[in-house]
Amino acid sequence: MTDERRASSDEEGVPGERAARARRVPSHAERCRTLVAQARSATLCTIARDPEGYPYGSLVAVAADGRGRPLLLLSRLAEHTRNLEHRPEASILLTEVADPGAQRLALGRVTLLGPCRVVEGPEREAARERFLAAQPDAASYVDFRDFAFFRLEPAAVRYVGGFGRMSWVGVEAYAAAAPDPLAGAAAGILEHMNEDHGDAVLAYARVLAGLPEASAATMTAVDQYGFDLAVATPAGAKTARVAFDSPLATPTEVRSAMVAMVARARGAG
Amino acid sequence: MTDERRASSDEEGVPGERAARARRVPSHAERCRTLVAQARSATLCTIARDPEGYPYGSLVAVAADGRGRPLLLLSRLAEHTRNLEHRPEASILLTEVADPGAQRLALGRVTLLGPCRVVEGPEREAARERFLAAQPDAASYVDFRDFAFFRLEPAAVRYVGGFGRMSWVGVEAYAAAAPDPLAGAAAGILEHMNEDHGDAVLAYARVLAGLPEASAATMTAVDQYGFDLAVATPAGAKTARVAFDSPLATPTEVRSAMVAMVARARGAG
Repeated sequence: MTDERRASSDEEGVPGERAARARRVPSHAERCRTLVAQARSATLCTIARDPEGYPYGSLVAVAADGRGRPLLLLSRLAEHTRNLEHRPEASILLTEVADPGAQRLALGRVTLLGPCRVVEGPEREAARERFLAAQPDAASYVDFRDFAFFRLEPAAVRYVGGFGRMSWVGVEAYAAAAPDPLAGAAAGILEHMNEDHGDAVLAYARVLAGLPEASAATMTAVDQYGFDLAVATPAGAKTARVAFDSPLATPTEVRSAMVAMVARARGAG
Repeated sequence: MTDERRASSDEEGVPGERAARARRVPSHAERCRTLVAQARSATLCTIARDPEGYPYGSLVAVAADGRGRPLLLLSRLAEHTRNLEHRPEASILLTEVADPGAQRLALGRVTLLGPCRVVEGPEREAARERFLAAQPDAASYVDFRDFAFFRLEPAAVRYVGGFGRMSWVGVEAYAAAAPDPLAGAAAGILEHMNEDHGDAVLAYARVLAGLPEASAATMTAVDQYGFDLAVATPAGAKTARVAFDSPLATPTEVRSAMVAMVARARGAG
């Protein structure tokens, strides 16, 4: 379960450096952690009591702890909670947060499979804090007696990045990975670059992505390692990846890098 | 599993006729059928092979047949398909189609639990037609050899209409019910009434819903039996239901009814 696509670090500093840099993309483990950190709702799958043994899908509000384990606040009266109290086997499906108009089946998603059990004792306070930070509206019922925190302990992690891009991610790689630090800012960066700096985006495509014949370009994703472009060329639509020189952590760092890259592109153009 | 909320027909024609009419709302079985007929994507829950016995959630494109049974077009290479070929126990969670900005957990949803098996032989052509009518993009891969149609046969139906409104719906009631004939037109009707006929909507609230103190009103839902209002009053926000005189089947019938009702409201006001 570990066929992760991950740029190996010993590809760097060799003649094909640009190609290696262009492959420096988030690992599937990182993509999963990012997705889980961003999600606010998810599908919980439990094992039904009646009809016995059938998987039961339901909608839940979700948060995650520092190791990417999903935290749920469930009413003991709900079907899924009674299912979990009977059998802890569960999975949680989380979908990428994207534009409302996005094709749902084109979005990245992750299924975390594992036992899902009540969080009690000293761990409860930490779970409560995490959950309320992600779900402030839950403050109105978090301390009701019939509500309890549950946590899913991943035993397997399945990533689907869209049509034809998927893998089983190792549970240790998943726990060790970090969410992308730019995830919360990405939508704003994309909007800003595409709306206010279309000329820069086209220069990135022509020079940095090696598509001099590009007639138009749109930035479609950005993460700490670089950004993706959708590029119109006389030969049809292409996609390209441009890597940052080193991983970036804040929108301010991205702004500086974008400015430096457009200067570099224009100097070379 | 049949605690359906359904206006009983022997409440009509008695002194509390308006109250009875006001309760003439879609049954949970009808709400489920409507929701399933409108949905284009869903969460499929199957039983995983590894880790064995865990429920596995995944995203699928969906259509429905004339009895509300979900139809899926699945690749035999996909995890969920191999799960189903190993064990047919499944459920499908479908969520109300709504404004992109809507709170996901406030939406109506239905979970259909039952065996999900390949549709072969003479039934395949009917499934193919239904599926392509709902999912025209699937035409590009529908006849690939590694794709097959699956159908879930409901053995249990769970409806959740939002916070605190839920029931098990009888499978026979589910199969016998029909989707709301106005479902596809509802969003357009609401937009038209609220944007172009706000004065009429306020008149409905003041006279037909019996809230003369209303200062503002918005139509929030419409179905064959009537419509829902969100009403601002000096005592705070209220909701109200106004029933049509008889079930309506087309937007044209709705238009006539709305015109007649505003005339009635103004005559009475």
